[in-house]
Amino acid sequence: MESEFLSWLRDRLPEHPRVRLGAGDDAAVVNWPTDSGCVLTTDLLSEGTDFESPPEDWRRVGRKALAMNLSDLAAMAAQPVAALVSVLLPRTGGLAIAQQLFEGMKPLVSRFDIPIAGGDTNSWEGPAVVSVTAVGQTTEHGIWRRSGARPDDRVLVTGSLGGSILGHHFDFLPRVHEALLLNARYRIHAATDISDGLSLDLANILVASGVGAVLDTACIPISAAASELARTAGGSPREHALGDGEDFELILIVPPGEAARLLRDQPLEVSLTDIGRVIGEPGLWEHRADGGRTPLEPRGYRH
Amino acid sequence: MESEFLSWLRDRLPEHPRVRLGAGDDAAVVNWPTDSGCVLTTDLLSEGTDFESPPEDWRRVGRKALAMNLSDLAAMAAQPVAALVSVLLPRTGGLAIAQQLFEGMKPLVSRFDIPIAGGDTNSWEGPAVVSVTAVGQTTEHGIWRRSGARPDDRVLVTGSLGGSILGHHFDFLPRVHEALLLNARYRIHAATDISDGLSLDLANILVASGVGAVLDTACIPISAAASELARTAGGSPREHALGDGEDFELILIVPPGEAARLLRDQPLEVSLTDIGRVIGEPGLWEHRADGGRTPLEPRGYRH
Repeated sequence: MESEFLSWLRDRLPEHPRVRLGAGDDAAVVNWPTDSGCVLTTDLLSEGTDFESPPEDWRRVGRKALAMNLSDLAAMAAQPVAALVSVLLPRTGGLAIAQQLFEGMKPLVSRFDIPIAGGDTNSWEGPAVVSVTAVGQTTEHGIWRRSGARPDDRVLVTGSLGGSILGHHFDFLPRVHEALLLNARYRIHAATDISDGLSLDLANILVASGVGAVLDTACIPISAAASELARTAGGSPREHALGDGEDFELILIVPPGEAARLLRDQPLEVSLTDIGRVIGEPGLWEHRADGGRTPLEPRGYRH
Repeated sequence: MESEFLSWLRDRLPEHPRVRLGAGDDAAVVNWPTDSGCVLTTDLLSEGTDFESPPEDWRRVGRKALAMNLSDLAAMAAQPVAALVSVLLPRTGGLAIAQQLFEGMKPLVSRFDIPIAGGDTNSWEGPAVVSVTAVGQTTEHGIWRRSGARPDDRVLVTGSLGGSILGHHFDFLPRVHEALLLNARYRIHAATDISDGLSLDLANILVASGVGAVLDTACIPISAAASELARTAGGSPREHALGDGEDFELILIVPPGEAARLLRDQPLEVSLTDIGRVIGEPGLWEHRADGGRTPLEPRGYRH
């Protein structure tokens, strides 16, 4: 459906060769390459629940709504194709909010070549709601799933973790380019992005794969924000790195030889760190200094 | 993202050969045929604005949210492929609502072979919001646009129009099968679905095509609901047929010879009616009995 916001948007977005869209057509049409699967993901953010009411900066909300979906594409090593953006906004001032939401998305649209191909604009008396759907394509290298982890694989993570609530959850760069590069050059058995928390998202991989893991928790890369949050809000930096949600980094499960090559190459601009090992026995453990292991309760945001 | 509702849903939906989705993967993957464009559309419905608070029957709300998107695919003669359903529901009783929303979608999922491939489930203290994205495929016969109307083309509509508010706006059958059949067998210059009102949606086609039209308003097929609404709420049945929104019938712009063949064949289960003629001069008119024409103000729901 046409709307004032989408007309406004269309005037500001350059035409994209991938998107065929006539003036006021009922739907967008995206060119599709041969032999490529269609990857679909969607996330909805609501005012007062997923972000403050009102937020300090609507641009950060718009940016995050698109970035979360891009992170889901990255988690499967899919190539971004197009996004749809639906908004439900207050009757008064809604258009200005819509414009700021889009201003926040714009840098990601360019950086990840993901045109906003359509959407739906609505107003009501309630708080703001932003719903984004991202469409991606599988590449010739296939997609990553959560279910491919095997015993003796290594557990790797990108970047540093924890304390996202201090700002990173708005400003993170989805690991799309990293995922595409890794998928093209290395053999990855399983992957996901960290949305609910390292230990919980890793546990999801382990359950999906029917395996377990032992973590060298001393090796977990801890962000400056995790240390800051530990000082101000309690908990240890490591606990924040293990349990805080919305890092939007990647967990990669990699065969041991391939992991050694990856860690030697360090092919990404962001760091890659080995934090543990997959084992056949289901469950999640922490490696002890004496060589034994202690159960590690997966923590994080449960839906 | 995984959620209780989606787990519940997955247990109830048969696996679909088109959708590859592992337990808890970050996104759905849909098989894509060669040489087929990807058609994307999305609609969002909110409680108290798009439907009553609370609605009499949540199943009708769920049905409508999916059906509107199917109607947008029909408007372009696209083949349904998959849908994503995101919901934002009250913390208390939200799961029961989600289940009813899905119960309402289920008959359309089967009838139009459009598996629900994913979504996002959220709760808050506010009213319910349902956001559906439908993905379709272009067929070998191409897609319909709004911009192809030419002088001397005939204006055809499916079904009968007006008074949708009395119930049809919940219970309509999106004209997907009709659109695919017509696109395969007949040459259609332009099309849209009637979501905002016959005169307004037709005006959108005329503007997109740079042409005008003269309607034989006496020929417009008037629904029983339009007559009933005229009796109870005022206005003439014809005014309701011209200006009421959400008929979700098709407006088809057809070359004259092809229109004659279509009207003779009547290849659909629903009626096809010729209601006027496209002319080169921009604008919308009503044909007068004396052979002259009177301007017709496009009316309907403006976003």
